[in-house]
Amino acid sequence: MCRWMAWFGEPVLLEELLFKTQHGLVDQSLHSRMGAETTNGDGIGLGWYGGGDGPGIYRSVSPAWSDANLRELAAHVESPLFLSHVRAAIGSPVQETNCHPFRHGRWLFVHNGFVDGFAKIRRDLMVELSAELFAGVQGSTDTEVIFHLALSEGLEDDPIGAMETVLGRIEDVAEAHGIANAVQGSFGISDGDHLWAIRYSTEGKSRSLFASADAVAVKKLHPENERLQRVHDNDRVIVSEPFSDLEGLWVEIPESTAVTVHRGGAMEQAPFTPVHAPAAVA
Amino acid sequence: MCRWMAWFGEPVLLEELLFKTQHGLVDQSLHSRMGAETTNGDGIGLGWYGGGDGPGIYRSVSPAWSDANLRELAAHVESPLFLSHVRAAIGSPVQETNCHPFRHGRWLFVHNGFVDGFAKIRRDLMVELSAELFAGVQGSTDTEVIFHLALSEGLEDDPIGAMETVLGRIEDVAEAHGIANAVQGSFGISDGDHLWAIRYSTEGKSRSLFASADAVAVKKLHPENERLQRVHDNDRVIVSEPFSDLEGLWVEIPESTAVTVHRGGAMEQAPFTPVHAPAAVA
Amino acid sequence: MCRWMAWFGEPVLLEELLFKTQHGLVDQSLHSRMGAETTNGDGIGLGWYGGGDGPGIYRSVSPAWSDANLRELAAHVESPLFLSHVRAAIGSPVQETNCHPFRHGRWLFVHNGFVDGFAKIRRDLMVELSAELFAGVQGSTDTEVIFHLALSEGLEDDPIGAMETVLGRIEDVAEAHGIANAVQGSFGISDGDHLWAIRYSTEGKSRSLFASADAVAVKKLHPENERLQRVHDNDRVIVSEPFSDLEGLWVEIPESTAVTVHRGGAMEQAPFTPVHAPAAVA
Amino acid sequence: MCRWMAWFGEPVLLEELLFKTQHGLVDQSLHSRMGAETTNGDGIGLGWYGGGDGPGIYRSVSPAWSDANLRELAAHVESPLFLSHVRAAIGSPVQETNCHPFRHGRWLFVHNGFVDGFAKIRRDLMVELSAELFAGVQGSTDTEVIFHLALSEGLEDDPIGAMETVLGRIEDVAEAHGIANAVQGSFGISDGDHLWAIRYSTEGKSRSLFASADAVAVKKLHPENERLQRVHDNDRVIVSEPFSDLEGLWVEIPESTAVTVHRGGAMEQAPFTPVHAPAAVA
Repeated sequence: MCRWMAWFGEPVLLEELLFKTQHGLVDQSLHSRMGAETTNGDGIGLGWYGGGDGPGIYRSVSPAWSDANLRELAAHVESPLFLSHVRAAIGSPVQETNCHPFRHGRWLFVHNGFVDGFAKIRRDLMVELSAELFAGVQGSTDTEVIFHLALSEGLEDDPIGAMETVLGRIEDVAEAHGIANAVQGSFGISDGDHLWAIRYSTEGKSRSLFASADAVAVKKLHPENERLQRVHDNDRVIVSEPFSDLEGLWVEIPESTAVTVHRGGAMEQAPFTPVHAPAAVA
Repeated sequence: MCRWMAWFGEPVLLEELLFKTQHGLVDQSLHSRMGAETTNGDGIGLGWYGGGDGPGIYRSVSPAWSDANLRELAAHVESPLFLSHVRAAIGSPVQETNCHPFRHGRWLFVHNGFVDGFAKIRRDLMVELSAELFAGVQGSTDTEVIFHLALSEGLEDDPIGAMETVLGRIEDVAEAHGIANAVQGSFGISDGDHLWAIRYSTEGKSRSLFASADAVAVKKLHPENERLQRVHDNDRVIVSEPFSDLEGLWVEIPESTAVTVHRGGAMEQAPFTPVHAPAAVA
Repeated sequence: MCRWMAWFGEPVLLEELLFKTQHGLVDQSLHSRMGAETTNGDGIGLGWYGGGDGPGIYRSVSPAWSDANLRELAAHVESPLFLSHVRAAIGSPVQETNCHPFRHGRWLFVHNGFVDGFAKIRRDLMVELSAELFAGVQGSTDTEVIFHLALSEGLEDDPIGAMETVLGRIEDVAEAHGIANAVQGSFGISDGDHLWAIRYSTEGKSRSLFASADAVAVKKLHPENERLQRVHDNDRVIVSEPFSDLEGLWVEIPESTAVTVHRGGAMEQAPFTPVHAPAAVA
Repeated sequence: MCRWMAWFGEPVLLEELLFKTQHGLVDQSLHSRMGAETTNGDGIGLGWYGGGDGPGIYRSVSPAWSDANLRELAAHVESPLFLSHVRAAIGSPVQETNCHPFRHGRWLFVHNGFVDGFAKIRRDLMVELSAELFAGVQGSTDTEVIFHLALSEGLEDDPIGAMETVLGRIEDVAEAHGIANAVQGSFGISDGDHLWAIRYSTEGKSRSLFASADAVAVKKLHPENERLQRVHDNDRVIVSEPFSDLEGLWVEIPESTAVTVHRGGAMEQAPFTPVHAPAAVA
């Protein structure tokens, strides 16, 4: 499984979050504390909104901690909204097309977790894609298939709704194959104007997910922390694992919950409930 | 498109064929003469039968000419039967899982050519695979799909028959999508006991394919060539493009033809005729 | 040998020059016309001034034509001053630390050409470096040694003068080893405020080097060319090989010449004359 | 720092030691127990004696645990004598030319440890190399410089003696630069006929080094262990960290000690004492 983070706020050099933060994502790639694996060395990915048309993507099979190009990019590119991901492969090959984020038009998609028994149901899931979306699946991860299924189901109009439909279907298909706890994970999604995050697992024991707390309150709590004092009130960070141990900085997103972050930092929270097909219920 | 070669004969160090032969495969990767592209720099692959269980595979995204590990492997591994491939990508990503040969159990598969309009029909072709074979497709090339379809259709019992079924079906599916000349290429197949090669294109203007001529005759023709004099009478080489300009060394395999090379060098030739579904004919 | 280009003018998306220009650098990596090699597939490098502190660097061992990250970076990063280089290795390994540009503080350095007999004189050249500059040589190319020697000799104060000193010394050392025509090439140098280019070879038959002509005149010549009409009057491009065949667009920089491009596009030209040690003259 | 292992005995498939052994080298690359770093994910190297002329080398910047080619090679290549190394870079770039083993003719060289303050003394050390050996240093590690210095000092005639001279000199040069504990590590060396290993550090607190015990005794101790029962009496393994927890299997090589393993498994042990220049002593 993996780690990911997302930033939505004032434009910052990517390195502020990726390299300079205590226990930041790149540091986590070597030594994670709360995750199931202790090393996330099977590739790095970065998607950012900024110059040019649509989001840019950087994906590499190098471990994040040794990738010289990632360090350069992070030190010289600014963005108001970006997602980054470090990977610990479980089964599928270490290759750029298996690195997150995945992209479609203006959309980016990251995932920490897995679809249990994916090899058994990959065919039955992909069959539901149109020829065009089917051809767009370039790698072999479960995540890329989830993303394309969600695109099929209207992700671009209603990302949370589309994910409820898709994760419900995956659970149905898995159950038909005798797989009990099909979905596990946290998801990050953006179109450049909003940032969505989902914490969900069939079993109800999901990977962790945190949002940064209200910046004003946190600054008061830690007047000595220079880096924190530079954070704007509207900046928001979502992480699969907290970056540091600062008290009050992180708010855990509850089980089976989706959050929407708006430009300006406002964040809404709603229950996330997969939609099951009637047939599967009967 | 690509270049490939296969060796079946006495065990040789791979470098004899890959690096030391005039106008050999690695040299061809930089400057091909008869192919459609002038550079095949999008990866290299090698599959060999020898030590261990089943064939070994080496695949790399480096251009063949600069891959230090390929050079090492070729200088230190001997094999009586191997296939090698240099790639010029046309659309699909440069990644190891898109490098030939593809492998399933004891079987190896290489291809020079393409399926026209593959993005449009990838879904309709892959849907015909079982869940298990579907999950075995790790990359995004047309070739890997052809190989898995052929496995579905009995490649392990009758490789040429399975390929006639599969290429026929691809032509049918393509035609239904308005694609006129779907299949182009030469194919190399082995299970470690035989070597098969197919030259075929829907259009009837196939990529080139050559077999080495009877060694006895060739040696007489070129008594001055030391390397040739070392070739055993039973050795056989199949190449998508001739290695050198030696007169009499290469026999062109005709259009729409399949050849079977047996251990000991005997080679049979037969017409290759794709099988079309009755519905598609009607 | 290699190809390189430099841009100094209004900020542009890198892809305008790297990918969208007819016969641009990436296209040249596959098929060069005037160079000694037909393929420059042994790595790509890019150095740009823009966001962050000092120039950013992207270096990859993938051929430029298939490097997905280069394409992304070029489509999403803007810069008023950048250098890019495609490599055809001659002897030294294909690795990121052998890709140009080389960097030291704010300085970038690229080279198309070679030091003849470099293996024989590498030691004698590097011995002249301070311990600190010696430790800064991370790869194994002749170019990186030339750059560090020039840093030793005051490149940061007088780049052209330092290069005259260094190339003279290399010729002296080479001659002492019986190497007649030691230096070959064109060089590109920048500190973010100026752009320098040198065309020089011991033999007097240097690799080509071109500067873009006065934009106003060129636009008049080709009123139909949309891309040209967008070029600002102050933009300047230096290339080892012309990008396109547009008449009047390129001005060849003469043999043994150094040019200095100032912000605003003004370009000076001066003779380039290596300085030889008295001992070597005697 | 790193981990390494060496095998000298009956020919085995490399995977027996690299992948199939409990807590073997590849497993160690992810989770080491006794080393200073918890992850060795900065490249893998393998040098083996077998087919072809001299040792073959495989080096890759991928982490060992995810390198598909390493797994293939290990499953299909047999060797009676090989060394393998997993790297945790400390400062120098992750690139193939920085992966161990290093090779010169028939000689292979691996190292777990470091030269403290290497950047400060790299120049003074390398200056002592001949032009030819200087040019042979392709990467930027301390280890490659140690190896080439040892070649300068007669490694091919007396490997332990040459290493005593070289490590003594490094200590002298370092001391002159105010570096107190210059050398740390264990070294593995082979010419295909013998295997040497050294455990030494200036400080006298060296990285661990173990040899496999007499096979006969170990088999009696663990009659239930099938893999152990297959080991021949003459097989010998040297490791920087024990592979498993089997009681009695591993003999720790003491501080400041060099061992020589002869064909047939006989192993001699001798004190290792760096030789210091008189000047440095004065």
